[in-house]
Amino acid sequence: MFLRNCWYVAALDQELIDGKLLSRRVLGEHLLIYKGESGRVVAMNDRCPHRGALLSRGRLEGDAVRCMYHGIKYDGSGKCVQIPGQDMIPPKLKVRTYPTEQRSHFIWVWMGDPAKADPALIVDLPYLNEPGWKGLPAYLHYDANYLLIVDNLSDFSHLAFVHTRTLGGSEEYAYVSKPTVIERLERGFRVERWHLNSDPPPFHKKVIPAADEAAKVDRRNIATMLIPGIFTMETLFAPAGSGAPQGNTGNARQYRNCQFMTPETERSTHFFWAYLNNYEGQDSTISISLLDSLIEGFMEDKAIIERQQQTLDEDPSFEKQMLAILADAPLAHFRRVLGKLIDAEQGSAAAAPAEPRLTTTAAG
Amino acid sequence: MFLRNCWYVAALDQELIDGKLLSRRVLGEHLLIYKGESGRVVAMNDRCPHRGALLSRGRLEGDAVRCMYHGIKYDGSGKCVQIPGQDMIPPKLKVRTYPTEQRSHFIWVWMGDPAKADPALIVDLPYLNEPGWKGLPAYLHYDANYLLIVDNLSDFSHLAFVHTRTLGGSEEYAYVSKPTVIERLERGFRVERWHLNSDPPPFHKKVIPAADEAAKVDRRNIATMLIPGIFTMETLFAPAGSGAPQGNTGNARQYRNCQFMTPETERSTHFFWAYLNNYEGQDSTISISLLDSLIEGFMEDKAIIERQQQTLDEDPSFEKQMLAILADAPLAHFRRVLGKLIDAEQGSAAAAPAEPRLTTTAAG
Amino acid sequence: MFLRNCWYVAALDQELIDGKLLSRRVLGEHLLIYKGESGRVVAMNDRCPHRGALLSRGRLEGDAVRCMYHGIKYDGSGKCVQIPGQDMIPPKLKVRTYPTEQRSHFIWVWMGDPAKADPALIVDLPYLNEPGWKGLPAYLHYDANYLLIVDNLSDFSHLAFVHTRTLGGSEEYAYVSKPTVIERLERGFRVERWHLNSDPPPFHKKVIPAADEAAKVDRRNIATMLIPGIFTMETLFAPAGSGAPQGNTGNARQYRNCQFMTPETERSTHFFWAYLNNYEGQDSTISISLLDSLIEGFMEDKAIIERQQQTLDEDPSFEKQMLAILADAPLAHFRRVLGKLIDAEQGSAAAAPAEPRLTTTAAG
Repeated sequence: MFLRNCWYVAALDQELIDGKLLSRRVLGEHLLIYKGESGRVVAMNDRCPHRGALLSRGRLEGDAVRCMYHGIKYDGSGKCVQIPGQDMIPPKLKVRTYPTEQRSHFIWVWMGDPAKADPALIVDLPYLNEPGWKGLPAYLHYDANYLLIVDNLSDFSHLAFVHTRTLGGSEEYAYVSKPTVIERLERGFRVERWHLNSDPPPFHKKVIPAADEAAKVDRRNIATMLIPGIFTMETLFAPAGSGAPQGNTGNARQYRNCQFMTPETERSTHFFWAYLNNYEGQDSTISISLLDSLIEGFMEDKAIIERQQQTLDEDPSFEKQMLAILADAPLAHFRRVLGKLIDAEQGSAAAAPAEPRLTTTAAG
Repeated sequence: MFLRNCWYVAALDQELIDGKLLSRRVLGEHLLIYKGESGRVVAMNDRCPHRGALLSRGRLEGDAVRCMYHGIKYDGSGKCVQIPGQDMIPPKLKVRTYPTEQRSHFIWVWMGDPAKADPALIVDLPYLNEPGWKGLPAYLHYDANYLLIVDNLSDFSHLAFVHTRTLGGSEEYAYVSKPTVIERLERGFRVERWHLNSDPPPFHKKVIPAADEAAKVDRRNIATMLIPGIFTMETLFAPAGSGAPQGNTGNARQYRNCQFMTPETERSTHFFWAYLNNYEGQDSTISISLLDSLIEGFMEDKAIIERQQQTLDEDPSFEKQMLAILADAPLAHFRRVLGKLIDAEQGSAAAAPAEPRLTTTAAG
Repeated sequence: MFLRNCWYVAALDQELIDGKLLSRRVLGEHLLIYKGESGRVVAMNDRCPHRGALLSRGRLEGDAVRCMYHGIKYDGSGKCVQIPGQDMIPPKLKVRTYPTEQRSHFIWVWMGDPAKADPALIVDLPYLNEPGWKGLPAYLHYDANYLLIVDNLSDFSHLAFVHTRTLGGSEEYAYVSKPTVIERLERGFRVERWHLNSDPPPFHKKVIPAADEAAKVDRRNIATMLIPGIFTMETLFAPAGSGAPQGNTGNARQYRNCQFMTPETERSTHFFWAYLNNYEGQDSTISISLLDSLIEGFMEDKAIIERQQQTLDEDPSFEKQMLAILADAPLAHFRRVLGKLIDAEQGSAAAAPAEPRLTTTAAG
C-alpha cells in the first residue's frame, strides 16, 4: 500500500536523452516515460490497451508513440490517433497518463488523482539550481521496500559500523556523538548531530588537500526526511574549535545531499540522489570522487537492507516483532505519519485506527 | 484448462532417433515419448509409480523401459513386467499411456479419453507427404500461453510492424491491404489477404534469383486456424499483374506453412512447424534459408508474446480488459469456439465420473 | 512439520575454524553457529532482534557477537550487553539460543524445548573416536526433503541400478541378494544384506591392492536408520568362502559409515557423513579415495532425489499415491514411527489419528 497523492521522482533527465522510451515501474505500475519532440515529458501506462504490448518497445513520433505490434498510435495525452487499416477509432482506446514535472535533473511524477497534482507540492531544494553547488545526479536500484532505506537513513549510528571505512570514519561516532535535535515534523522529521574534534571520514579525506587530512574537524549533519521518502542532509566539516557550533562556518567545507526513495514495487525501490559540494573548481574531479564514495557507501547499506527484505519475505511477522531502541524514535514517527496519510487516502481513517508498521514499544 | 479430446503434436520424429527417451510436458503432464525397437511410438506418464523417478532417465529395453532407480520395468502399454528381487507384481503397478500417431515428421498424441482417439481426426495436410513440397520441420519453445501465439497469427497486420525487415516487408502492408475473406469455421477461421503490386519481403528476396528481386509481386496469404491450435497458410508470390487473383498462378512461387501450438503448461508452449516451398531443386539450400528466416521472424514474435505473458502474469485482470479492434474478429471467434468446446468437455466429464490421475492406494 | 525435541547435526567442527560466524538454516530457522574464544559452541537465531540484520555478518568479540548494523552486542547466551549511544538495555532485547553439543567432528543442536535437551540422547558411535577407524567427515547440500534421502537409504536394491559403476558394482546385486534381516526398531529399522561370492564394487577396488581386485568377495551391509534421520552402516568385504557369514571376519576389510540428514527447510537438507575404514596406514590416501567415491555416488542419488522433490512440488498429491513394493517395508515403518512422534510432540495425537506421510500399506 503506497501513498498515491504525492510527487515521486521517477527518472533523471539523463535517462531521457534523444527521445529514449524509458520503461520504469513506479508503485507497481509500468510506466513509459519520454521527452517528446516538443520537450514535454510524458508518463503513460506502458501497456497498449489493445493486446498489452509494451509501448516502450514502440516508436516515438513527435510527441506521440506508436505500438510496434499492430501499429496503433497514441498522442502525448494517451489518446489513440491511428489504427492502421481501420478508419473508426473507438473512444475507449486510450492510455492512462500521469502528471509530470521536471526540477533540475529530476523528473517527478504524480501517481494519484491528477486533479490534485499541484506542482507547488514538490519539495523546493534551491541548491540544485545554484551554480555554487556542484555534483552529479545518480541512480541505484534496491531489491527492498523503500521504507527499509528510510529506516537506514533515520539513525546515523549506522555510519559508525556499516561505513567505518567509507562514509563514517570510526566506531567512536556511535559512542561519543548523539543527535542534539530530533524534531518531529508534520510530514517527517529533522535530526541534527555534531561530532566535535574528530578525524575526517575517508570519503572527505579523499577530496581535501593532503595537508588538511590530519587536522581534526567539527562535523555536523542536519538531516530531514519527508513523506513519501525524501531525504536531505546538510553536512559541514569545519576546523575543530573554529566555532562552527556557534555559527562560525566561514571556513567550513559543506555538502548538500538529497536522496529520493521511490517504490518500484512493495519489494524494490528506485533510489535517486545528488551529493553536492560548495568548494570545487571548474572541473568535476571532486564531484566524481564523491559520486564514487557515495556508491561505495550505498553498496554497504544495500547488502544489509536487501537482506532485511529477504528476512521479512521469509517471515513477515517479524516486521511487528522488531524491538526498538532509543535511536528509532524518528523512524517510528515517520512510519506512524505515513501510515495515517495512507489510511486517510484509502478512506479508512474513520473506520480503523492508524496502524503504524512498527508497533513495538520503543525503548524510550 | 485445456481441450483434452483432440490430437496435439508432441514431438518431431528427429527427436526420437535411436531409442532416445524424450521427456516432454504436454497439457501440464510429463510424458516420456520414445520409438521402441519395433518402431512403435510410445507416450507414457514420465513418472515411475513406485517412487516417482523419471522414466525418461531410465533405459530402453526393446519396446519396454526400465526405471533406473530400483530397476522396475514397464512394457510399451505401461504394464509392469519386472521388479528385481520380487516375484509377485502388483496389478496396480502400471503407468498411464497415451495414444500416438505419426504423420510425416510429426508425432501426435491424444491426451483425453483413449476410447475417443480416432486417427481420422488428425488434420490432413497432404503436401507434407508430396515430393514437390520441400522443407525442414522445426521446433521452438515459448514461455507463453499457446493462445497468445494463436492471437498473433490471427491478425496479419502485425507483419507490417513486427516483421518489417524479415517476413513482412513494409509498413504499407498494414495500410493498403486488408483481408478479403474472413470466414468463421465450426472449429476455427479462414482468412484470405492480397497485397497487390508490392515489393517482395526480405525472406522471399533471399531465395529468389537476384534478377527478380526488384520486380513487383502480387502476394497472397490464405490462412486457417483450427482447434486446438493448428495454423496453416498457403502463400504465393506471382508477378504483379499476371492475373493471380483471377486464378492464373502458373508463374507463382508458392509456400505451404503449417504450425502447431501445443500447450506445455498454462504459461508455456511447444511450437512445431514446417515451411515448405514448391520450387527448390535437389539440395536444401532454399529450405535452410527459409528455416533461418522463419526463426528470425518467430524470434520477433516471441519477444512480444512472452512479454504479453509476463504482463498477464502480473495483472491477470488485463485479459478481460483488452480492447478489440476490427482485426480481432477472427481471434475473438476462435477463443469463443474453443471456450465452448472446453466447457462441453468439462461438462460431460463432470457428468461422467472424473478420472483421477492415480486413484490406487497400496501395492497389496 | 519436523520433530523438534531431538538432536540434529548442524555443522562440522572444520566449519567453525578461528571464530568463523557460520550461518546455517536448520528446520527452517536461520542459526548463527560459532565457537567462541572460550571454546564453547554457540547456536543462536541469526537475526538481530532490533532491525533483523544477520548476526552472522557481525563481529565475534570473545564469546559474544556484535551486530554490525547499529553495533548492538549479544553475549553467548543471547543477552544484549551493549547498545552504542544508549545506557539502558531493554530486557526484551535478546536473541534465542539453542543447546549444542560436540561429538567427534560433529556439532549437534537441539531445536526443541531446551529443558529436554539431554546430551545422553545423542547417538553413540564409538568408532568415531577410535584411532583404528580412519576417515574424513564431509558435507553435501540437497535440494530435497530429508525423508527422500531416508527413503533412498532404506532400499539397497538401488545400489544395483543407480550406483552400478561406483558404489554398487553390478545389477546382479538386486536380483541375487536380499535382506536377510529386516528389524523394526522403536525409533527406526535395521537391515542386514549379504552378497556372497561377488565381484568387489568399483569404490572398493580402487583402494585395495591390484592383486586382490579379481578375487571374489562375500559382501555384507548392516544398516540402521534412526529418528530423526541418522543412518549407520557396517560394511565388510571378506574373501569369498572364508566363513564370514559364520562370523569368521578376521580377514575382512571393513567400513563404518554414518550419515546425518538434517532438514534445512521442508525442501532442502544438510547431509553430513563420515566413511571410515579399518585398514589404512598413517597417511590419508585411502580416506581421500573413499571420500571421492562417496561423493561420486551421492551425486548419483542427488540427481534422482532432487528430481523427486520437483515432482512432488509440482504434484503434492503424488506423495500419497506412490505404490509400495516389498522392499519399501523399512521406509514405510520409519515414516509411520516418525509421524507418530511428530504428532505426539504437536500434542495432537489424541485429537486425530497419526498421519504418516506414506499411508499406503507397505507390501510386506
